[in-house]
Amino acid sequence: MLTKLHEEKVFKDPVHNSVYVQDLTIWKLINTSEFQRLRRIRQLGTSYLTFHGAEHSRFSHSLGVYEITRKIISQFERNGYVDWPQEEKLLSLCASLLHDVGHGPFSHSLEQNFGLDHEQWTCEIVLGATEVNRVLREVDSLFPERVAAVIRKKYEKPIVVSLVSSQLDADRMDYLLRDAYFTGVNYGTFDLDRILRVLRPYQGKIVVKESGMHAVEDYLMSRYQMYWQVYFHPVTRSSDILLRQIFRRASELYHAGYKFDFLLPPLRALLSGSLTLGQYLKLDEAMVQTAFGQWSEERDDLLSDLCGRFLNRQLYKYVPLVGEEREWLDHVRQEWERIGLHPDYHMEVDTPEDSPYDVYQPGALPDSKEKPPILLLDEQEELAEISVRSDIIRSIAGLHRGKYYIYYPAEKVLPLADRLSPETRKKLSI
Amino acid sequence: MLTKLHEEKVFKDPVHNSVYVQDLTIWKLINTSEFQRLRRIRQLGTSYLTFHGAEHSRFSHSLGVYEITRKIISQFERNGYVDWPQEEKLLSLCASLLHDVGHGPFSHSLEQNFGLDHEQWTCEIVLGATEVNRVLREVDSLFPERVAAVIRKKYEKPIVVSLVSSQLDADRMDYLLRDAYFTGVNYGTFDLDRILRVLRPYQGKIVVKESGMHAVEDYLMSRYQMYWQVYFHPVTRSSDILLRQIFRRASELYHAGYKFDFLLPPLRALLSGSLTLGQYLKLDEAMVQTAFGQWSEERDDLLSDLCGRFLNRQLYKYVPLVGEEREWLDHVRQEWERIGLHPDYHMEVDTPEDSPYDVYQPGALPDSKEKPPILLLDEQEELAEISVRSDIIRSIAGLHRGKYYIYYPAEKVLPLADRLSPETRKKLSI
Amino acid sequence: MLTKLHEEKVFKDPVHNSVYVQDLTIWKLINTSEFQRLRRIRQLGTSYLTFHGAEHSRFSHSLGVYEITRKIISQFERNGYVDWPQEEKLLSLCASLLHDVGHGPFSHSLEQNFGLDHEQWTCEIVLGATEVNRVLREVDSLFPERVAAVIRKKYEKPIVVSLVSSQLDADRMDYLLRDAYFTGVNYGTFDLDRILRVLRPYQGKIVVKESGMHAVEDYLMSRYQMYWQVYFHPVTRSSDILLRQIFRRASELYHAGYKFDFLLPPLRALLSGSLTLGQYLKLDEAMVQTAFGQWSEERDDLLSDLCGRFLNRQLYKYVPLVGEEREWLDHVRQEWERIGLHPDYHMEVDTPEDSPYDVYQPGALPDSKEKPPILLLDEQEELAEISVRSDIIRSIAGLHRGKYYIYYPAEKVLPLADRLSPETRKKLSI
Amino acid sequence: MLTKLHEEKVFKDPVHNSVYVQDLTIWKLINTSEFQRLRRIRQLGTSYLTFHGAEHSRFSHSLGVYEITRKIISQFERNGYVDWPQEEKLLSLCASLLHDVGHGPFSHSLEQNFGLDHEQWTCEIVLGATEVNRVLREVDSLFPERVAAVIRKKYEKPIVVSLVSSQLDADRMDYLLRDAYFTGVNYGTFDLDRILRVLRPYQGKIVVKESGMHAVEDYLMSRYQMYWQVYFHPVTRSSDILLRQIFRRASELYHAGYKFDFLLPPLRALLSGSLTLGQYLKLDEAMVQTAFGQWSEERDDLLSDLCGRFLNRQLYKYVPLVGEEREWLDHVRQEWERIGLHPDYHMEVDTPEDSPYDVYQPGALPDSKEKPPILLLDEQEELAEISVRSDIIRSIAGLHRGKYYIYYPAEKVLPLADRLSPETRKKLSI
Repeated sequence: MLTKLHEEKVFKDPVHNSVYVQDLTIWKLINTSEFQRLRRIRQLGTSYLTFHGAEHSRFSHSLGVYEITRKIISQFERNGYVDWPQEEKLLSLCASLLHDVGHGPFSHSLEQNFGLDHEQWTCEIVLGATEVNRVLREVDSLFPERVAAVIRKKYEKPIVVSLVSSQLDADRMDYLLRDAYFTGVNYGTFDLDRILRVLRPYQGKIVVKESGMHAVEDYLMSRYQMYWQVYFHPVTRSSDILLRQIFRRASELYHAGYKFDFLLPPLRALLSGSLTLGQYLKLDEAMVQTAFGQWSEERDDLLSDLCGRFLNRQLYKYVPLVGEEREWLDHVRQEWERIGLHPDYHMEVDTPEDSPYDVYQPGALPDSKEKPPILLLDEQEELAEISVRSDIIRSIAGLHRGKYYIYYPAEKVLPLADRLSPETRKKLSI
Repeated sequence: MLTKLHEEKVFKDPVHNSVYVQDLTIWKLINTSEFQRLRRIRQLGTSYLTFHGAEHSRFSHSLGVYEITRKIISQFERNGYVDWPQEEKLLSLCASLLHDVGHGPFSHSLEQNFGLDHEQWTCEIVLGATEVNRVLREVDSLFPERVAAVIRKKYEKPIVVSLVSSQLDADRMDYLLRDAYFTGVNYGTFDLDRILRVLRPYQGKIVVKESGMHAVEDYLMSRYQMYWQVYFHPVTRSSDILLRQIFRRASELYHAGYKFDFLLPPLRALLSGSLTLGQYLKLDEAMVQTAFGQWSEERDDLLSDLCGRFLNRQLYKYVPLVGEEREWLDHVRQEWERIGLHPDYHMEVDTPEDSPYDVYQPGALPDSKEKPPILLLDEQEELAEISVRSDIIRSIAGLHRGKYYIYYPAEKVLPLADRLSPETRKKLSI
Repeated sequence: MLTKLHEEKVFKDPVHNSVYVQDLTIWKLINTSEFQRLRRIRQLGTSYLTFHGAEHSRFSHSLGVYEITRKIISQFERNGYVDWPQEEKLLSLCASLLHDVGHGPFSHSLEQNFGLDHEQWTCEIVLGATEVNRVLREVDSLFPERVAAVIRKKYEKPIVVSLVSSQLDADRMDYLLRDAYFTGVNYGTFDLDRILRVLRPYQGKIVVKESGMHAVEDYLMSRYQMYWQVYFHPVTRSSDILLRQIFRRASELYHAGYKFDFLLPPLRALLSGSLTLGQYLKLDEAMVQTAFGQWSEERDDLLSDLCGRFLNRQLYKYVPLVGEEREWLDHVRQEWERIGLHPDYHMEVDTPEDSPYDVYQPGALPDSKEKPPILLLDEQEELAEISVRSDIIRSIAGLHRGKYYIYYPAEKVLPLADRLSPETRKKLSI
Repeated sequence: MLTKLHEEKVFKDPVHNSVYVQDLTIWKLINTSEFQRLRRIRQLGTSYLTFHGAEHSRFSHSLGVYEITRKIISQFERNGYVDWPQEEKLLSLCASLLHDVGHGPFSHSLEQNFGLDHEQWTCEIVLGATEVNRVLREVDSLFPERVAAVIRKKYEKPIVVSLVSSQLDADRMDYLLRDAYFTGVNYGTFDLDRILRVLRPYQGKIVVKESGMHAVEDYLMSRYQMYWQVYFHPVTRSSDILLRQIFRRASELYHAGYKFDFLLPPLRALLSGSLTLGQYLKLDEAMVQTAFGQWSEERDDLLSDLCGRFLNRQLYKYVPLVGEEREWLDHVRQEWERIGLHPDYHMEVDTPEDSPYDVYQPGALPDSKEKPPILLLDEQEELAEISVRSDIIRSIAGLHRGKYYIYYPAEKVLPLADRLSPETRKKLSI
């Protein structure tokens, strides 16, 4: 089958300037309804409530991952590296483009609430009765299986997996740059061109020429900064908490037999835990936001309050805690009940464990799902794990820090503050 | 009333780096539900289907207009210009922030279909029973009226109106930069700092120091380029056509008594022409997209086809026409009917008149709604309309050009192409 | 002869990010003493006295022109355009790199004073007993002649000439971007990537795909802006005037038999009009500035005053004139003499004719040295001169404007102002 | 004395966009011959031989330091911080502008060779019979002394010293951004605006609001990267070695009574160790380069070879050494002599001690000349040294690494390689 487009297609992209499509298969994949659906799912979930520019979609990120992969492979081909299996080009490009196609609305929050797994949905989309699957099968009847194998990190040639999923992969490179661009936080920038120039295929892995060590340091520092400035921003966490509480409440109500005034079938299936692929593909952030708008008028006070808060950005206030302070927290819960607040909804503690922090992991156990470390290739053709050579990376790699925050609706708590214990008032800075 | 915040609030903004809020009134306005609603309305309507980065909201643009206004006034104050009425600062800032608060989803398209007028809605929000109105009244019971007067361009001090609405106003400066940033089209950039530095309040107007003429030329060239590269992009026009057709069809069906499976009250009111302010405020792009998702399964083939097309970006193909060619178009309509296509839905002609093209208008009739021209102030304190001095601007000012395009669903027409006349096939490049 | 480097060399460049060298010949040319000498010659002559960042050298510009040429050819090769003669790649790259190698210190000013011609010196360097010539001869004994032919615009294949020298050539594209970058004037930027993408070799010319028209408009607007903001800046003109006066005075003195305390042989040869190639290659801006430092202590008052002014940036003041006003100027000269100022040195009039203004020339006479116009290639494979299609370019093309300025040493004139006629005082704004 | 300019002056600056001058004193200082002389001294010495864009002058850096200081003070004034002594504004601005005015050509190299000290020259310029001194005395007869005290870090109010000289001072902030901009190495960028926003005057020091910790981390990482990518680049070190060898050789010759064909008085005074202030001010990089051009034709082979190399960028090759290897180095010296190379000139070892590496020093002994640490101010108004709070900074602070390189003229050594010992050939990778 002829897979080259007569003339290459170009998408204007603010991050990479242009995204070039040369393969007919890629062009067709982009035009499937499953891929277009990613336009209605934000890359950064609720972060737009913290950074108003962060409205960018998973559609644009997926194109970006594809484009970086395309550039890496093109560099490998231009330099004629024999360790790169040329016949895997289209597979790598398809897997890059599709690796996030299974994401649903506000994925990270909803996955936690409902036990969903976007990687599994991605594989269902690739293998199931979808437009994506039909396009992939045009290449070869076994091609969908191969794409899914790459996405599941089980493909027989690890070098293809490592393009799409490693600690220096096209996915991470794109999202750091893209999230930095759209939030306006310029900590996240690093020299992509330079990194692309120092990547080498080598013995089944993608490694970094030693002269590129400082560029990788810079990339990892960008990750570190983006974690603290953007991904773990307490205002974003606060929005996530609202979102999870809304769905927790809606589930409770659903299972208690509550009759919703508004409940489109995909949402009903979500709450009942019976989502089919077809229904999942209809769930998007527009539908979730529309539901919140309707639910803000439901009879259940908790649900309507939470939905109104989310839409109008009346977030819970947050106060850092010094440690876990389990005992005090139990105590606060009681105080909350005493003054008439809901101990499960009107407060929430955010622990560092909820935000797995992996700027860089120097070692991964052989069979773990962790991503393999970054390797430097020196002039003597020897490999070394990068944190052995870089003091900076060694220091980041060792880090495991996180802050505890307590969140609560300030305007509900404040009028009742004089009924709280002095300790609680002090800790909540009231 | 104390209106200064204890500590200034800062929004991270990709275009201006930071947006600074120092007034309590501004802070409260931003937090009203009417203003937060702008997060769910895109600045560029359907342009995201052409430029995938263009997901930015009217919320971010409104903050940007506010910030530019703040900077202009701050420059005036720093230099102690006596022509600037200092007591109008808060009014100017509020009007800047709120000037677009009445926009609805996909405004430009929907306003055409339903005869809505966002400026009128803005005034209703400012003057009606809203959170915005409540905040404004805290300043002064007449303050909402003054804000509305500025927005309606009737305020007694024209200099305040001209800050918010002129051919070189904070609105245009922000949207050019912002739209360029998010689309990734770098034609739209110009030196904002330099323009801000050469603005002067002078005899009730805001004028430009003559030394800034080239900076204004550059700004107007950005406008010119953005018109052709972004605002009039035929792919965006094609998406707009689908959108208008969807609402045209939905209206027809509604008025014909069709029973929709999905029709939330604000949409019903939109179709029936009975929107209240409360309903209008519930209309957002999430609701429109959700409706399209549901309507793509309605029994009416036309409606369901159009909605599916919009969501999955299966746009009509376009072909430029040499002129209007009314006669031929009548003829095509007959051919369309003959081969079983809908002459009102399966083709559409886009004429330049639909896209009013006003990069710059050197003269405005005294009572017209047109915006006043840009004036240069020379060292002898004399004013001159800018196109008198600048050859470039004179040449742009004279321009009135536009292309005719015909749009049609290629995949429906192509299989029937041999039943079309040779002339039609030639003109449609089939 | 093997001409590929084992591993490509990369120069870090602020404008293009990286400059890639893959050919051994290019690498060797860069390392010749004649090419390294360009490090000591500024790209923008005296502009650094107006824009302090503009210290960039002709070395960096020459690398940039090479890099753009390399990118254009690489695009042609990637797309397999048959109109591009592949065997001319190395020739094109060498000519691009070397096209400015004959520039001397403050070329534009000194060429005027001494009747030098940098293109002629370039050809002497390419063809004479130089390191450059030796490297070129390694390719082929006739190769230097071919390089010189391209530079003289006489090469048999016009497409090669047009890469290096046309109204949309690698030279202009690099210097606009580079001068904008180093001056900090952001008017000069345009979308290089987009322009590179729409260039096509076609029937012995390099033409522009019609869809690139707006990108070319933007490029020409950048030229227009850079002319007015940078290249014709009156402060730069004022510095140029000082420079030319210094060399005019030094020549006068030399020919009058004046004994200089400091006069290195290349400078002596310059003044006497007997420069050999070897001496010319020793002239650089360091030597000129050192001479000025020494000459600021010469016994001749005029010379020492002018040199001190140049080094310490005590420039002549400028006042715009409404027209030529020849009569009045004759009159001022007499007044100058009357009050004891030098009519040839203590005033100078800068006329637009001195600054040939060619943002774009739509037509060139067949045998003229003017550069050929920019041609658009439409989808029907027809060519059209661009100003026929673009209103903007038509308006720029017609422009021929310029300001008359009079320059004079304000601190010498002011104390004598009451002895000047009222008309003169008014015109000089004294 | 009136010190405000009637209208502020603006310098176009690529790094800060604009530099604003509002004080007449600052304007006059910029126009002194001593300050204008900084245009002829590069900010980065020989780095332009590694990064061709790095031609920027100390003039532009000095303006940048002034501008950052102006912005910091303006922020302090705008927020009305009482810990900032408002009366010290002009002093701070003058000291910022002038802090580098005593730099000579290729300072770091020449200072090492001749025991010069730019800070001492700066104070002589401020206090001596100069234009700078005359302008400063117009403010107040004691003003020059106060400026000198700030520059010597002895001024009675430490907060003024710390603006100009600390580990987070205007000097470092400007040079990191500027050097990054002109080299094109984008590792050196950090968010200046954000850092300026979090600085606070507090108890006689300038401290950082705790919320700015990550911005400071980013700034220090930029320093770290710029050290390794730019300041310690081995090619730059190689150029420095040539420069120092040239002056070492010239000194030897001078003291041995050699008669130079070319030796302008300031150079003679430099070699003889008898520089007066007047002579020092005549030394600039133009004169040094001109001397090298002339010396490349001197009869002394070593001197002429070294000068030709420097001008034509024929640098010594470098090879990293694993450690100091003193013994082997003694051995190589003998081998060098044996094969006829000069053991003091045809090889050089660069040790890390020559490049004092101080990205950040958390503690400084009370009386040392080291710069005080960076302090964070938390919400409880408590101060903490930043490395206590930041893991990243703690890890950088502990670093003291450096590479040993050996440099030698490859094209002289290679033809004689078979006469070297196998060990030497291996270590030199020959």
